[in-house]
Amino acid sequence: MTTTPTPTQATRRGRPGYDRQTLVDLCVKVFNRHGYEATSMGMLATELGISKSAIYHHVKTKEEILQSALDDALDGLEAVTEQAEHTAGPARDKIEALIKGAVKVLVNRQHSVTLLLRLRGNSEVETKALLRRRDLTTRLASLIADAQAEGSVRETTSPKVLARLIYGTVNSLVDWYSPEKSAGAEQTGDVLVDLIFQGIEQD
Amino acid sequence: MTTTPTPTQATRRGRPGYDRQTLVDLCVKVFNRHGYEATSMGMLATELGISKSAIYHHVKTKEEILQSALDDALDGLEAVTEQAEHTAGPARDKIEALIKGAVKVLVNRQHSVTLLLRLRGNSEVETKALLRRRDLTTRLASLIADAQAEGSVRETTSPKVLARLIYGTVNSLVDWYSPEKSAGAEQTGDVLVDLIFQGIEQD
Repeated sequence: MTTTPTPTQATRRGRPGYDRQTLVDLCVKVFNRHGYEATSMGMLATELGISKSAIYHHVKTKEEILQSALDDALDGLEAVTEQAEHTAGPARDKIEALIKGAVKVLVNRQHSVTLLLRLRGNSEVETKALLRRRDLTTRLASLIADAQAEGSVRETTSPKVLARLIYGTVNSLVDWYSPEKSAGAEQTGDVLVDLIFQGIEQD
Repeated sequence: MTTTPTPTQATRRGRPGYDRQTLVDLCVKVFNRHGYEATSMGMLATELGISKSAIYHHVKTKEEILQSALDDALDGLEAVTEQAEHTAGPARDKIEALIKGAVKVLVNRQHSVTLLLRLRGNSEVETKALLRRRDLTTRLASLIADAQAEGSVRETTSPKVLARLIYGTVNSLVDWYSPEKSAGAEQTGDVLVDLIFQGIEQD
């Protein structure tokens, strides 16, 4: 499997190069393929077909790339959670907005979310990201509790367990969503909302 | 984070040791914490508090441990799929049996299933495991197609996408299920079946 680099204007300086964002994106794909810990700066340089100094031109450490990617994923998920919480109407509609928003983030930032979901908390950067991720689940659980109180969501299961299962369903997208073969983000969001709210059973 | 080893009879030979299954289980936890590729035999020995030769007493290579763990996960999932397919009654009931069976495997073999779910196909062993995993999804999709034909499952979404989403919901267990804090396998299976069939919405 090879990455498909898109060299940028930096090449005019006589060496292959990328802008910082492209560099981070390509490194994240390598992390996801071999695991973050197993990936060295040397491997990144080899896989990207550039020199290590071309990488150090943008970032000081491997962890700085990790931090950038995790921020990318978490900033996106936090933004849609914030938007959902401020959606007008019943809590039910806020949950729907959150699911659709999260699907968009997963589709548009598939690789950085994949990296986030595989973290085990082996460093301070990872631990902080896991705390931010846990907070997102808590905020969804809070909306579910509101919806149960307003009578729009069934009370058979606790908000916390439902929030984890809903995120499980949504997060599975990173493993199988294909920008080329799957439906677009909007239609995929509709499918997820339909499944999560109505279930698969024919009434 | 430390593993909590339970030395076995092998210790009577004057060196700490485990039976093969215990050894594999402990190694899988280390793989899951650091990533399979990043974990060396030396790291395994250090984390388990035994010598490398004590590991080589049971296995020839790191890949042999991976293969054992993947077989453990996949054999379990294939067995419950087989059982579900032979469950009497409509396809709807077979799907329910499959979900409950898969939950039991995930709860009882949480670490080996976690390892399976993080594979990227970087070797022949991994590629073969991914093919077996894909086959499980195809078999669930086939039951869903049958259930749609019999009118018990709604036809709004394709069997393939539904199978992936259902496995996504079930697989999320490996990330948050706690043998100490969560409900037992049977009750968890009931929650999953209820959510997947009925959805969260209060009618």
